[in-house]
Amino acid sequence: MLRDRRQGGVNYCPECGAAAVSLRVPPGDTRARQLCERCGHIAYVNPKMVAGAIPVWEEKVLLCRRAIEPRAGLWTLPAGFLELGETMAEGARREALEEANADVEIGDLYALYSVPHISQVYALFRARLLDASVAPGEESLEVALFSEEAIPWAEIAFPAIGKTLELYFEDRGRGRYRTHAGDILRASQEDPTAIFRIRSI
Amino acid sequence: MLRDRRQGGVNYCPECGAAAVSLRVPPGDTRARQLCERCGHIAYVNPKMVAGAIPVWEEKVLLCRRAIEPRAGLWTLPAGFLELGETMAEGARREALEEANADVEIGDLYALYSVPHISQVYALFRARLLDASVAPGEESLEVALFSEEAIPWAEIAFPAIGKTLELYFEDRGRGRYRTHAGDILRASQEDPTAIFRIRSI
Repeated sequence: MLRDRRQGGVNYCPECGAAAVSLRVPPGDTRARQLCERCGHIAYVNPKMVAGAIPVWEEKVLLCRRAIEPRAGLWTLPAGFLELGETMAEGARREALEEANADVEIGDLYALYSVPHISQVYALFRARLLDASVAPGEESLEVALFSEEAIPWAEIAFPAIGKTLELYFEDRGRGRYRTHAGDILRASQEDPTAIFRIRSI
Repeated sequence: MLRDRRQGGVNYCPECGAAAVSLRVPPGDTRARQLCERCGHIAYVNPKMVAGAIPVWEEKVLLCRRAIEPRAGLWTLPAGFLELGETMAEGARREALEEANADVEIGDLYALYSVPHISQVYALFRARLLDASVAPGEESLEVALFSEEAIPWAEIAFPAIGKTLELYFEDRGRGRYRTHAGDILRASQEDPTAIFRIRSI
Protein backbone atom coordinates (compact mmCIF):
# COMPACT_ATOMS: atom_id res chain seq x y z
CA MET A 1 0.00 0.00 0.00
CA LEU A 2 1.39 3.35 -0.98
CA ARG A 3 -0.10 5.34 1.83
CA ASP A 4 -1.28 5.28 5.36
CA ARG A 5 -4.50 7.30 5.24
CA ARG A 6 -4.45 7.96 8.95
CA GLN A 7 -1.11 9.71 8.67
CA GLY A 8 -1.53 11.53 5.36
CA GLY A 9 -0.08 10.49 2.03
CA VAL A 10 -1.20 11.10 -1.55
CA ASN A 11 -2.76 9.32 -4.54
CA TYR A 12 -1.72 12.04 -6.99
CA CYS A 13 1.24 14.39 -7.05
CA PRO A 14 0.10 17.60 -5.34
CA GLU A 15 2.66 19.55 -7.42
CA CYS A 16 1.91 18.40 -11.01
CA GLY A 17 -1.23 16.21 -10.68
CA ALA A 18 0.39 13.03 -12.07
CA ALA A 19 -0.77 9.64 -10.81
CA ALA A 20 2.83 8.38 -11.13
CA VAL A 21 3.59 8.44 -7.42
CA SER A 22 6.06 5.81 -6.15
CA LEU A 23 7.07 4.92 -2.64
CA ARG A 24 10.87 4.79 -2.66
CA VAL A 25 13.99 6.22 -1.04
CA PRO A 26 14.92 9.46 -2.85
CA PRO A 27 18.60 10.12 -3.67
CA GLY A 28 20.43 11.36 -0.56
CA ASP A 29 17.60 10.31 1.77
CA THR A 30 17.47 7.35 4.12
CA ARG A 31 13.80 6.44 4.10
CA ALA A 32 11.03 5.79 1.62
CA ARG A 33 8.97 8.81 0.55
CA GLN A 34 6.11 9.31 -1.87
CA LEU A 35 7.92 10.63 -4.93
CA CYS A 36 6.43 11.80 -8.24
CA GLU A 37 8.07 9.99 -11.17
CA ARG A 38 6.99 12.80 -13.52
CA CYS A 39 8.16 15.98 -11.78
CA GLY A 40 10.30 14.65 -8.91
CA HIS A 41 8.22 16.30 -6.17
CA ILE A 42 8.45 14.57 -2.79
CA ALA A 43 5.26 14.53 -0.72
CA TYR A 44 6.68 14.64 2.81
CA VAL A 45 4.36 13.66 5.61
CA ASN A 46 5.30 14.62 9.16
CA PRO A 47 3.96 14.07 12.66
CA LYS A 48 1.29 16.45 13.91
CA MET A 49 1.46 18.61 16.99
CA VAL A 50 -1.46 18.78 19.44
CA ALA A 51 -1.66 21.77 21.79
CA GLY A 52 -3.86 21.76 24.87
CA ALA A 53 -4.55 23.33 28.24
CA ILE A 54 -5.29 22.27 31.81
CA PRO A 55 -7.71 25.12 32.64
CA VAL A 56 -8.27 25.52 36.37
CA TRP A 57 -10.88 27.52 38.28
CA GLU A 58 -10.86 27.43 42.08
CA GLU A 59 -9.08 24.03 42.23
CA LYS A 60 -11.42 22.55 39.62
CA VAL A 61 -10.30 21.37 36.18
CA LEU A 62 -12.24 22.05 33.00
CA LEU A 63 -13.04 18.98 30.93
CA CYS A 64 -14.97 18.62 27.67
CA ARG A 65 -17.13 15.67 26.64
CA ARG A 66 -16.33 14.96 23.01
CA ALA A 67 -19.06 15.34 20.38
CA ILE A 68 -16.81 13.94 17.63
CA GLU A 69 -14.78 10.86 16.86
CA PRO A 70 -12.42 9.50 17.96
CA ARG A 71 -13.78 8.73 21.44
CA ALA A 72 -17.07 10.61 21.10
CA GLY A 73 -18.91 10.76 24.45
CA LEU A 74 -15.73 10.60 26.54
CA TRP A 75 -14.05 13.40 28.51
CA THR A 76 -10.87 15.23 27.66
CA LEU A 77 -8.91 18.40 28.26
CA PRO A 78 -9.38 21.04 25.54
CA ALA A 79 -6.70 20.30 22.92
CA GLY A 80 -6.33 20.07 19.17
CA PHE A 81 -4.04 20.26 16.17
CA LEU A 82 -1.72 23.22 16.06
CA GLU A 83 -2.38 25.48 13.06
CA LEU A 84 0.14 27.14 10.72
CA GLY A 85 1.50 30.39 12.09
CA GLU A 86 0.47 29.63 15.69
CA THR A 87 2.55 29.26 18.81
CA MET A 88 1.70 26.28 20.99
CA ALA A 89 0.37 28.57 23.70
CA GLU A 90 -1.87 30.31 21.15
CA GLY A 91 -3.09 26.93 19.92
CA ALA A 92 -3.88 25.79 23.47
CA ARG A 93 -5.76 29.05 24.14
CA ARG A 94 -7.74 28.79 20.89
CA GLU A 95 -8.74 25.19 21.57
CA ALA A 96 -10.10 26.10 25.02
CA LEU A 97 -12.13 28.85 23.38
CA GLU A 98 -13.39 26.67 20.51
CA GLU A 99 -14.22 23.58 22.55
CA ALA A 100 -15.51 25.14 25.77
CA ASN A 101 -15.95 28.89 25.13
CA ALA A 102 -13.37 29.15 27.88
CA ASP A 103 -11.23 32.24 28.26
CA VAL A 104 -7.88 31.03 29.60
CA GLU A 105 -4.50 32.49 30.40
CA ILE A 106 -1.81 30.00 29.38
CA GLY A 107 0.91 29.35 31.95
CA ASP A 108 3.92 27.04 32.12
CA LEU A 109 4.46 24.05 29.89
CA TYR A 110 3.25 21.06 31.87
CA ALA A 111 3.70 18.01 29.65
CA LEU A 112 5.23 17.06 26.33
CA TYR A 113 4.54 13.59 25.00
CA SER A 114 5.41 11.71 21.83
CA VAL A 115 2.72 9.27 20.73
CA PRO A 116 4.59 7.55 17.90
CA HIS A 117 2.01 4.95 16.83
CA ILE A 118 -0.27 7.79 15.72
CA SER A 119 2.63 10.14 14.84
CA GLN A 120 1.49 12.88 17.20
CA VAL A 121 3.20 15.08 19.75
CA TYR A 122 1.16 16.57 22.60
CA ALA A 123 2.10 19.78 24.41
CA LEU A 124 -0.09 20.57 27.44
CA PHE A 125 0.07 23.80 29.40
CA ARG A 126 -1.15 24.78 32.83
CA ALA A 127 -3.82 27.46 32.44
CA ARG A 128 -5.94 29.78 34.51
CA LEU A 129 -9.60 29.93 33.60
CA LEU A 130 -10.45 33.65 33.66
CA ASP A 131 -14.21 33.28 33.83
CA ALA A 132 -16.19 30.27 35.07
CA SER A 133 -18.98 30.71 32.53
CA VAL A 134 -18.04 27.99 30.05
CA ALA A 135 -20.26 26.37 27.43
CA PRO A 136 -19.81 23.58 24.88
CA GLY A 137 -18.41 24.52 21.47
CA GLU A 138 -19.28 22.58 18.29
CA GLU A 139 -16.94 19.70 19.10
CA SER A 140 -18.19 19.20 22.68
CA LEU A 141 -21.40 17.67 24.00
CA GLU A 142 -20.89 19.11 27.45
CA VAL A 143 -18.23 20.98 29.42
CA ALA A 144 -17.80 21.05 33.19
CA LEU A 145 -15.47 21.88 36.07
CA PHE A 146 -14.36 18.85 38.10
CA SER A 147 -12.79 18.64 41.53
CA GLU A 148 -10.16 15.91 41.89
CA GLU A 149 -12.71 13.62 43.57
CA ALA A 150 -15.24 14.06 40.74
CA ILE A 151 -12.95 13.36 37.75
CA PRO A 152 -14.66 10.67 35.59
CA TRP A 153 -11.54 8.49 35.45
CA ALA A 154 -13.25 5.61 33.66
CA GLU A 155 -14.54 7.91 30.94
CA ILE A 156 -11.39 9.77 29.91
CA ALA A 157 -10.94 9.79 26.13
CA PHE A 158 -7.15 9.40 25.74
CA PRO A 159 -4.31 7.84 27.78
CA ALA A 160 -2.27 11.07 27.45
CA ILE A 161 -5.05 13.05 29.09
CA GLY A 162 -5.70 10.59 31.91
CA LYS A 163 -1.97 10.49 32.66
CA THR A 164 -1.76 14.28 32.67
CA LEU A 165 -4.63 14.58 35.13
CA GLU A 166 -3.03 11.97 37.41
CA LEU A 167 0.30 13.81 37.34
CA TYR A 168 -1.40 17.16 37.84
CA PHE A 169 -3.21 16.11 41.02
CA GLU A 170 -0.11 14.29 42.27
CA ASP A 171 1.98 17.45 41.78
CA ARG A 172 -0.69 19.63 43.37
CA GLY A 173 -0.73 17.35 46.39
CA ARG A 174 3.05 17.61 46.68
CA GLY A 175 2.92 21.39 46.34
CA ARG A 176 5.18 21.60 43.29
CA TYR A 177 4.33 21.41 39.61
CA ARG A 178 7.00 19.55 37.67
CA THR A 179 7.42 19.36 33.90
CA HIS A 180 6.70 15.96 32.39
CA ALA A 181 8.22 14.77 29.12
CA GLY A 182 8.32 11.42 27.42
CA ASP A 183 6.58 8.84 25.33
CA ILE A 184 3.21 7.15 25.32
CA LEU A 185 3.57 3.82 23.58
CA ARG A 186 1.25 0.95 22.79
CA ALA A 187 2.04 -2.48 24.25
CA SER A 188 1.69 -4.03 20.76
CA GLN A 189 -0.43 -3.83 17.64
CA GLU A 190 -2.82 -6.33 19.16
CA ASP A 191 -2.79 -4.91 22.67
CA PRO A 192 -3.62 -1.20 22.84
CA THR A 193 -2.65 -0.88 26.53
CA ALA A 194 -0.75 2.38 26.98
CA ILE A 195 2.84 2.28 28.22
CA PHE A 196 4.10 5.51 29.76
CA ARG A 197 7.80 6.40 29.64
CA ILE A 198 7.81 9.81 31.25
CA ARG A 199 10.50 11.80 33.05
CA SER A 200 9.22 14.32 35.57
CA ILE A 201 11.59 17.16 36.33
CA MET B 1 -1.86 33.08 -3.99
CA LEU B 2 -3.27 29.69 -3.14
CA ARG B 3 -0.27 28.36 -1.33
CA ASP B 4 2.71 29.19 0.71
CA ARG B 5 5.42 26.97 -0.75
CA ARG B 6 7.54 27.25 2.34
CA GLN B 7 4.80 25.76 4.49
CA GLY B 8 3.40 23.15 2.09
CA GLY B 9 0.18 23.45 0.13
CA VAL B 10 -0.93 21.86 -3.13
CA ASN B 11 -1.53 22.73 -6.81
CA TYR B 12 -3.56 19.56 -7.44
CA CYS B 13 -5.83 17.54 -5.19
CA PRO B 14 -3.64 14.76 -3.71
CA GLU B 15 -6.76 12.55 -3.37
CA CYS B 16 -8.33 12.73 -6.88
CA GLY B 17 -5.77 14.67 -8.97
CA ALA B 18 -8.15 17.52 -9.93
CA ALA B 19 -6.74 21.02 -10.44
CA ALA B 20 -9.95 22.44 -8.93
CA VAL B 21 -8.42 23.37 -5.57
CA SER B 22 -9.92 26.41 -3.81
CA LEU B 23 -8.76 28.23 -0.72
CA ARG B 24 -11.88 28.65 1.43
CA VAL B 25 -13.35 27.91 4.85
CA PRO B 26 -14.87 24.40 4.79
CA PRO B 27 -18.29 23.87 6.44
CA GLY B 28 -17.88 23.59 10.21
CA ASP B 29 -14.33 24.96 10.14
CA THR B 30 -13.09 28.41 11.15
CA ARG B 31 -10.19 28.96 8.78
CA ALA B 32 -9.44 28.76 5.08
CA ARG B 33 -8.14 25.41 3.81
CA GLN B 34 -7.19 24.10 0.41
CA LEU B 35 -10.31 22.20 -0.60
CA CYS B 36 -10.93 20.15 -3.73
CA GLU B 37 -14.09 21.31 -5.51
CA ARG B 38 -14.36 17.95 -7.28
CA CYS B 39 -14.04 15.38 -4.49
CA GLY B 40 -14.22 17.54 -1.34
CA HIS B 41 -10.82 16.47 0.01
CA ILE B 42 -9.20 18.98 2.34
CA ALA B 43 -5.41 19.27 2.11
CA TYR B 44 -4.51 20.14 5.68
CA VAL B 45 -1.08 21.61 6.29
CA ASN B 46 0.29 21.63 9.82
CA PRO B 47 3.37 22.93 11.60
CA LYS B 48 6.45 20.73 11.61
CA MET B 49 8.30 19.43 14.60
CA VAL B 50 12.10 19.65 14.83
CA ALA B 51 13.88 17.35 17.30
CA GLY B 52 17.46 17.97 18.38
CA ALA B 53 20.10 17.25 20.98
CA ILE B 54 22.71 19.10 23.01
CA PRO B 55 25.38 16.37 22.97
CA VAL B 56 28.03 16.89 25.62
CA TRP B 57 31.42 15.23 26.07
CA GLU B 58 33.63 16.30 28.97
CA GLU B 59 32.02 19.75 29.28
CA LYS B 60 32.23 20.33 25.52
CA VAL B 61 29.22 20.66 23.23
CA LEU B 62 28.98 19.04 19.82
CA LEU B 63 28.15 21.41 16.96
CA CYS B 64 27.79 20.75 13.24
CA ARG B 65 28.69 23.15 10.42
CA ARG B 66 25.86 22.98 7.92
CA ALA B 67 26.55 21.72 4.39
CA ILE B 68 23.01 22.54 3.27
CA GLU B 69 20.66 25.52 3.05
CA PRO B 70 19.30 27.29 4.93
CA ARG B 71 22.36 28.79 6.61
CA ALA B 72 24.98 26.63 4.92
CA GLY B 73 28.42 27.18 6.45
CA LEU B 74 27.06 28.13 9.88
CA TRP B 75 27.10 26.07 13.08
CA THR B 76 24.18 24.37 14.76
CA LEU B 77 23.22 21.62 17.18
CA PRO B 78 22.24 18.36 15.49
CA ALA B 79 18.49 18.64 14.84
CA GLY B 80 15.98 17.93 12.11
CA PHE B 81 12.39 17.18 11.19
CA LEU B 82 10.69 14.49 13.20
CA GLU B 83 9.66 11.50 11.08
CA LEU B 84 6.41 9.53 11.16
CA GLY B 85 6.38 6.87 13.86
CA GLU B 86 9.24 8.40 15.83
CA THR B 87 9.37 9.73 19.36
CA MET B 88 11.07 13.09 19.78
CA ALA B 89 13.93 11.45 21.68
CA GLU B 90 14.38 8.94 18.83
CA GLY B 91 14.38 11.80 16.32
CA ALA B 92 16.98 13.71 18.31
CA ARG B 93 19.16 10.60 18.56
CA ARG B 94 18.82 9.86 14.83
CA GLU B 95 19.76 13.41 13.85
CA ALA B 96 22.93 13.30 15.95
CA LEU B 97 23.85 10.05 14.21
CA GLU B 98 23.00 11.33 10.70
CA GLU B 99 24.62 14.75 11.00
CA ALA B 100 27.67 13.94 13.12
CA ASN B 101 27.95 10.13 13.32
CA ALA B 102 27.49 10.80 17.01
CA ASP B 103 26.24 8.11 19.34
CA VAL B 104 24.22 9.89 22.02
CA GLU B 105 22.09 8.97 25.00
CA ILE B 106 19.12 11.34 25.14
CA GLY B 107 18.36 12.84 28.56
CA ASP B 108 15.85 15.38 29.85
CA LEU B 109 13.85 17.74 27.68
CA TYR B 110 15.75 21.02 27.76
CA ALA B 111 13.84 23.43 25.52
CA LEU B 112 10.57 23.63 23.62
CA TYR B 113 10.06 26.58 21.30
CA SER B 114 7.35 27.65 18.90
CA VAL B 115 8.68 29.50 15.86
CA PRO B 116 5.37 30.62 14.35
CA HIS B 117 6.60 32.62 11.35
CA ILE B 118 8.04 29.42 9.89
CA SER B 119 5.40 27.16 11.50
CA GLN B 120 7.92 25.03 13.34
CA VAL B 121 8.20 23.69 16.86
CA TYR B 122 11.65 22.80 18.24
CA ALA B 123 12.21 20.25 21.00
CA LEU B 124 15.81 20.06 22.25
CA PHE B 125 17.09 17.47 24.69
CA ARG B 126 20.16 17.30 26.87
CA ALA B 127 22.31 14.41 25.68
CA ARG B 128 25.41 12.52 26.62
CA LEU B 129 27.84 11.81 23.82
CA LEU B 130 28.89 8.18 24.33
CA ASP B 131 31.99 8.28 22.17
CA ALA B 132 34.06 11.32 21.20
CA SER B 133 34.86 10.00 17.73
CA VAL B 134 32.44 12.06 15.68
CA ALA B 135 32.57 12.78 11.94
CA PRO B 136 30.48 14.86 9.54
CA GLY B 137 27.44 13.21 7.97
CA GLU B 138 26.11 14.19 4.51
CA GLU B 139 24.47 17.37 5.78
CA SER B 140 27.52 18.64 7.67
CA LEU B 141 30.77 20.19 6.41
CA GLU B 142 32.48 19.73 9.74
CA VAL B 143 31.63 18.66 13.29
CA ALA B 144 33.49 19.57 16.46
CA LEU B 145 33.36 19.71 20.25
CA PHE B 146 33.42 23.23 21.69
CA SER B 147 34.13 24.44 25.19
CA GLU B 148 31.99 27.39 26.31
CA GLU B 149 34.82 29.81 25.52
CA ALA B 150 35.27 28.46 22.00
CA ILE B 151 31.62 28.55 20.84
CA PRO B 152 31.51 30.44 17.50
CA TRP B 153 28.72 32.77 18.66
CA ALA B 154 28.81 34.96 15.54
CA GLU B 155 28.44 31.94 13.27
CA ILE B 156 25.48 30.15 14.81
CA ALA B 157 22.89 29.21 12.17
CA PHE B 158 19.59 29.81 13.97
CA PRO B 159 18.35 32.05 16.81
CA ALA B 160 16.77 29.04 18.55
CA ILE B 161 20.14 27.32 18.70
CA GLY B 162 22.10 30.37 19.87
CA LYS B 163 19.54 30.95 22.62
CA THR B 164 19.69 27.32 23.70
CA LEU B 165 23.47 27.41 24.00
CA GLU B 166 23.29 30.65 26.02
CA LEU B 167 20.72 29.15 28.38
CA TYR B 168 22.67 25.91 28.63
CA PHE B 169 25.89 27.59 29.76
CA GLU B 170 23.97 29.91 32.06
CA ASP B 171 22.26 26.92 33.70
CA ARG B 172 25.50 25.01 33.92
CA GLY B 173 27.13 27.98 35.65
CA ARG B 174 24.28 28.11 38.15
CA GLY B 175 24.50 24.39 38.77
CA ARG B 176 20.90 23.59 37.78
CA TYR B 177 19.43 22.74 34.41
CA ARG B 178 15.99 24.27 34.02
CA THR B 179 13.42 23.52 31.31
CA HIS B 180 12.84 26.36 28.86
CA ALA B 181 9.60 26.78 26.93
CA GLY B 182 8.22 29.59 24.85
CA ASP B 183 8.21 31.40 21.55
CA ILE B 184 10.79 32.75 19.15
CA LEU B 185 9.20 35.55 17.17
CA ARG B 186 10.40 37.91 14.47
CA ALA B 187 10.33 41.65 15.20
CA SER B 188 8.41 42.24 11.92
CA GLN B 189 8.31 41.07 8.32
CA GLU B 190 10.93 43.69 7.46
CA ASP B 191 13.07 43.21 10.56
CA PRO B 192 14.16 39.61 11.14
CA THR B 193 15.57 40.31 14.62
CA ALA B 194 14.55 37.43 16.89
CA ILE B 195 12.39 38.14 19.93
CA PHE B 196 12.54 35.51 22.67
CA ARG B 197 9.56 34.95 24.96
CA ILE B 198 10.76 32.07 27.07
CA ARG B 199 9.80 30.83 30.53
CA SER B 200 12.52 28.95 32.37
CA ILE B 201 11.30 26.61 35.07
